[in-house]
Amino acid sequence: MSRTPESLLSFSRSALDELRAHAPLVQCLTNAVVVNFTANALLALGAAPAMVDLPGEAGPFARVAGGVLLNLGTPAAEQREAMLEAAAAANDAGTPWVLDPVAIGALPVRTALAGALRELRPTVVRGNASEIIALAGGGSGGRGVDAADAVEEAIPAARSLARQTGAIVAVSGPVDAVTDGRELIRVANGDALLTRITGGGCALGAVMAAFAAVAEDRLAGTVAALTVYTVAAELAAERSAGPGTFGAAFLDTLASLDGDALSARAAIS
Amino acid sequence: MSRTPESLLSFSRSALDELRAHAPLVQCLTNAVVVNFTANALLALGAAPAMVDLPGEAGPFARVAGGVLLNLGTPAAEQREAMLEAAAAANDAGTPWVLDPVAIGALPVRTALAGALRELRPTVVRGNASEIIALAGGGSGGRGVDAADAVEEAIPAARSLARQTGAIVAVSGPVDAVTDGRELIRVANGDALLTRITGGGCALGAVMAAFAAVAEDRLAGTVAALTVYTVAAELAAERSAGPGTFGAAFLDTLASLDGDALSARAAIS
Amino acid sequence: MSRTPESLLSFSRSALDELRAHAPLVQCLTNAVVVNFTANALLALGAAPAMVDLPGEAGPFARVAGGVLLNLGTPAAEQREAMLEAAAAANDAGTPWVLDPVAIGALPVRTALAGALRELRPTVVRGNASEIIALAGGGSGGRGVDAADAVEEAIPAARSLARQTGAIVAVSGPVDAVTDGRELIRVANGDALLTRITGGGCALGAVMAAFAAVAEDRLAGTVAALTVYTVAAELAAERSAGPGTFGAAFLDTLASLDGDALSARAAIS
Repeated sequence: MSRTPESLLSFSRSALDELRAHAPLVQCLTNAVVVNFTANALLALGAAPAMVDLPGEAGPFARVAGGVLLNLGTPAAEQREAMLEAAAAANDAGTPWVLDPVAIGALPVRTALAGALRELRPTVVRGNASEIIALAGGGSGGRGVDAADAVEEAIPAARSLARQTGAIVAVSGPVDAVTDGRELIRVANGDALLTRITGGGCALGAVMAAFAAVAEDRLAGTVAALTVYTVAAELAAERSAGPGTFGAAFLDTLASLDGDALSARAAIS
Repeated sequence: MSRTPESLLSFSRSALDELRAHAPLVQCLTNAVVVNFTANALLALGAAPAMVDLPGEAGPFARVAGGVLLNLGTPAAEQREAMLEAAAAANDAGTPWVLDPVAIGALPVRTALAGALRELRPTVVRGNASEIIALAGGGSGGRGVDAADAVEEAIPAARSLARQTGAIVAVSGPVDAVTDGRELIRVANGDALLTRITGGGCALGAVMAAFAAVAEDRLAGTVAALTVYTVAAELAAERSAGPGTFGAAFLDTLASLDGDALSARAAIS
Repeated sequence: MSRTPESLLSFSRSALDELRAHAPLVQCLTNAVVVNFTANALLALGAAPAMVDLPGEAGPFARVAGGVLLNLGTPAAEQREAMLEAAAAANDAGTPWVLDPVAIGALPVRTALAGALRELRPTVVRGNASEIIALAGGGSGGRGVDAADAVEEAIPAARSLARQTGAIVAVSGPVDAVTDGRELIRVANGDALLTRITGGGCALGAVMAAFAAVAEDRLAGTVAALTVYTVAAELAAERSAGPGTFGAAFLDTLASLDGDALSARAAIS
């Protein structure tokens, strides 16, 4: 089945309604910098965040969560152990999980962890171009959390990674790209202010886990997450005087965004 | 002595003045998700937060703090050790301390820790209905941080827990309930937006520790904390366009709230 | 060379342009309370934050970063190890680094760490009066993060610390003081609201690391960081209704501040 932009938009509207109706429990093992913003983004959207990231708790919780996010931004030793536990339990229980391989490539601890998690076959992988290239096995990594590579250059790596692991792979950038290894969808929404607050990309990974909890079609669900998130950013930017007020306006917009606003703005191709 | 709503309101007004006059030092050992918002809520209110949660420092600091909060939201190994150290030192020095048993019940690591801390007899316990039922020894826990039970169903457990431990027990929900095991006070303020930002309940625990630092009457002090906090939420909600702007407006309101606004709104019974 | 207020202001304007043109990579090993606000302040200003604080990663990253911040607010064991690794690597690679000895004096774990880091000769030290006095070897420390001493009382200690270590030493307070052990510069900007949000001082340390990355003249660079930061606070306070809206307005102002606004407000002497 090849999806059309119209069918993806229609799916996004339904998935957003579904998410708000069911408030899926989204477990996040994420970095210390963005953990507050991520929880607030999930709450604003209508999901139920739970930042359960201790060994001994992360596994059992992943069995009952609707979706799980593993974000490698500040993976201290206890959290690394909890991530491996959560991924194994999620696989065992059939819980979808998202891997966000933050700043892998040059940094050895997280790069080794990302390799181990890749072997566990994440449901979705989200990263910038450099991170996706590094996780697919090439490249030398970006500049901290900034991509040194452009989205278009990462598309062969994204397709390859999707085929290797069975994951949906999303590459973030001015125009985002999502692939299952065969189809390639582009979403051209968003605003540069999303790169001027920390957690702009990280919270998107959590939102992808929330949509995976309500959408069996993983490719369409990932596109829905991306579209909702970046359309909200676009609308919020219009009401902001800078990155500080944008952060608050973005949460407000995630809470109020409806299907018609989504239809009016979505740029899926 | 049985307290009247009028005397509790009058006490709340005095306690708020007292708090602002003395800026009590409030030590928080709290979770990574809400630590920033909690410190900002204390600062806005007029208290002096200190997030001292390392073994070797937590105990000595608890001896000089005005009040201590132990919140079990993300209790990593080092923090668990520091919590036990802080509670023992607080007891030894006569420092009041608040226990917030976040998401206990199904999650084993924090449930064991909560059990150990209950034995040390906290001054105040604050939780949602499921958490209070679990700490009192019943129930199977909530759904992550969300309560599966209603406040009214938790009142027998709250009374029992208060009698077992000597603590003031506060159950959070649409209408909050506070008991010392004999009297039961209800506060019907607040706004649903407080549940759409992370840390809405967690920061309240810290505010209870701040009021405990200035109010010898622990029951009235806990009611004062609750009333100030939920009236501020009500006022802030009227000036908010959603959860993002609510977060900022709430901090502004905690800073500006005065006794007259408290009197005009407080719904204590 | 003795600097004039005029030359320091002119340097500040150029350094701000330089910073925005080059977006230096600023590595922060900082406390859990302020890590989000710190990253957002750096992003708003135009720098590229990277919160890399794991042993095994912190050292390699300090070799490629433009500047490094070590903030002792919540130094858990892994982070302490990473800080020593980062400082040694920064020295080896010639990367400037800023030490913020939060709440040292009475708290033993961080006081011992600060002593070890002082021996590694930080490029810049930033603290309140009590922290600077404690790091210079005197005093008994403040009240948690609050200074018990006034800026003026800390000036002899600041001069002595600068001469002992070769660092630029900045003492924060209503009027900030900066010294290299010989010259003493005062900056009289800022607003009391900066003390009503958490991280007001901590993020300043990160901004000093960002300016050190673009300014070879360390004394003038530190004055530039302080002036930009406190002028932005002054302007933001005029557009704020309290500490919550101030936090957002401050980030907006860091992003929009230009050289003319700096010249109109700067109070360097």
